[in-house]
Amino acid sequence: MVSFNEKGYREDCAAALSTRARIDEVARKYASRGFESIVFVGVGGTWIEWGAVREIAQKRTALPIRLENAAEVVLERNLSYLNKRALIITSSVSGDTKEVLAAVEFCRKRGLEVIGFTHDETTPLASLLADWIPMTTDYCQNNFLLYFTLVYSLLSQRGEFSGYERWCAAIEKTPDELLALRASFDPRADRIARKYHKAPYSIWVGSGAMYYCTYLFAMCLLEEMQWVRTRPVTAADFFHGNLELVEDGVPVFVVKGVDEFRPLDQRVDDFLDRYHPTDSAEILDMGAFPLASLGDEFREEAAVLSFCATVIDRLSRQYEHYTGHSLAFRRYYRQLDY
Amino acid sequence: MVSFNEKGYREDCAAALSTRARIDEVARKYASRGFESIVFVGVGGTWIEWGAVREIAQKRTALPIRLENAAEVVLERNLSYLNKRALIITSSVSGDTKEVLAAVEFCRKRGLEVIGFTHDETTPLASLLADWIPMTTDYCQNNFLLYFTLVYSLLSQRGEFSGYERWCAAIEKTPDELLALRASFDPRADRIARKYHKAPYSIWVGSGAMYYCTYLFAMCLLEEMQWVRTRPVTAADFFHGNLELVEDGVPVFVVKGVDEFRPLDQRVDDFLDRYHPTDSAEILDMGAFPLASLGDEFREEAAVLSFCATVIDRLSRQYEHYTGHSLAFRRYYRQLDY
Repeated sequence: MVSFNEKGYREDCAAALSTRARIDEVARKYASRGFESIVFVGVGGTWIEWGAVREIAQKRTALPIRLENAAEVVLERNLSYLNKRALIITSSVSGDTKEVLAAVEFCRKRGLEVIGFTHDETTPLASLLADWIPMTTDYCQNNFLLYFTLVYSLLSQRGEFSGYERWCAAIEKTPDELLALRASFDPRADRIARKYHKAPYSIWVGSGAMYYCTYLFAMCLLEEMQWVRTRPVTAADFFHGNLELVEDGVPVFVVKGVDEFRPLDQRVDDFLDRYHPTDSAEILDMGAFPLASLGDEFREEAAVLSFCATVIDRLSRQYEHYTGHSLAFRRYYRQLDY
Repeated sequence: MVSFNEKGYREDCAAALSTRARIDEVARKYASRGFESIVFVGVGGTWIEWGAVREIAQKRTALPIRLENAAEVVLERNLSYLNKRALIITSSVSGDTKEVLAAVEFCRKRGLEVIGFTHDETTPLASLLADWIPMTTDYCQNNFLLYFTLVYSLLSQRGEFSGYERWCAAIEKTPDELLALRASFDPRADRIARKYHKAPYSIWVGSGAMYYCTYLFAMCLLEEMQWVRTRPVTAADFFHGNLELVEDGVPVFVVKGVDEFRPLDQRVDDFLDRYHPTDSAEILDMGAFPLASLGDEFREEAAVLSFCATVIDRLSRQYEHYTGHSLAFRRYYRQLDY
């Protein structure tokens, strides 16, 4: 596979899986103190990732789980639920993301502790967090592993989730499974990127937790890292405006999830079958990429991980291969002051 | 002004304002029964409009106000708050919007009543609603007037909002004020449309309640009615991916609101000043269009109404004038079965 370093991948996965002890330690501490809600705070890619985690984890608990954008949480919004009865969780690998640092400082000024993930103890974020958990990962799938593991450990400690041991056992096999999935998807990623990398505009449709994943790829990979013009849209909204842009030459990517929202994805798929009968519709069906280890119990989490392996990881690398535009190159983001 | 019929406009406004008696009657009935939350249900444009109303109205009450997409509410999501203690409100002028009808039927099957707005008693929606309120409006500003009036009447009846009489008195002057605003903005709308109507891709940025309005224009007007390719994005997200698309020839429209989110809009404005010094940035500042009658107390509602008058109404008509593409023409939406 182009631009894939198996050794680095395996080390990345091993580091993520080995974080469990520290995650459990932090979860025990905060679960024993007690809290009445969880608030995820992120910005850009981390806001989106926590959004997908929220959609799925909320189904496993009656505890309210909220999502706040770090750039918005610092505004004078008097958010009633941002209080000492909430467990506030954030993340930034680099640990220097401006909005996340400001959000944590905003909370601290109000006497609120924040915990979260960052690369190591030297990052600016680490020194602001009440407790930090190492996150050294370069692979999106492993960010999600860490996030789900923390939330499920917390819920398990509170006696609200009985599947935590099964989750931890199951994810041990994800490095191998997601490597095999990469290899099997890669030829398709190659075909997709070869065909569409010069398209002046593409539509990306998803729903539920998978909308967050779809949006992550459209904004953080295609827009930010490839300068490819996209229109991310939910499957529900697609039918109320965006559909009128469908015409020959416009690629439409539909990410089909495995949750209750799937009928909405299917409706888009059916619409494209009938009315976009060119070869410019790409159905990315996460139902076709189940992970045996995660089984039915964790099929929604599996859909997220499979999307990371196939679309976020392999499709982005194949785009890079055809556009010649390095995924690492930016003109504005973190290059200029703003 | 091109494509503007003052007589029709005045009739539309008069009809909306005259609805107050019926709104109060419905509000009294449901407030006296009691409820513990409000759930707005819409799809496409109505989902977006209710979203903006929610953002603003939520600041006036501790009562939880929730927003649900009609296409998503019918999925097997076991929404705990969709119960008899919630007041469920929807709207569809045509009264035959497929997703809204399905959502109301879904609620009815669960023994839940829904109230809302529709054109008249002959629509399919009217026969499904426990109580319906006439909405005959062709002007987005008047949809918002009706929605805010219902919510504020409900909150007032519950003793949670003391400004209802002031609201009702103030909105009497909005037809004249918003007509004058149209006339003063129209030359700029003409210039904007003339300059950008052939742009192959435009970015539309907003935040808070005004993001919903921005999205309404980008999706329901530019995409659906003009087949213009847009990328709507929040001011927070703009800086985490979409900004990399900014280059010469890409129009960036920034809708600046008047609420707590304004610093985020200002940050985009400042970014464009420094790094997009072409003449392709358009700042649409709602702070420049205050409505004297609504004053400071209702300045956030005024921003929504002013956006309707200037951007949604005049800018769309000016786009139509230059593109020659009728705002009424669709190739798929409500033309085909899907």
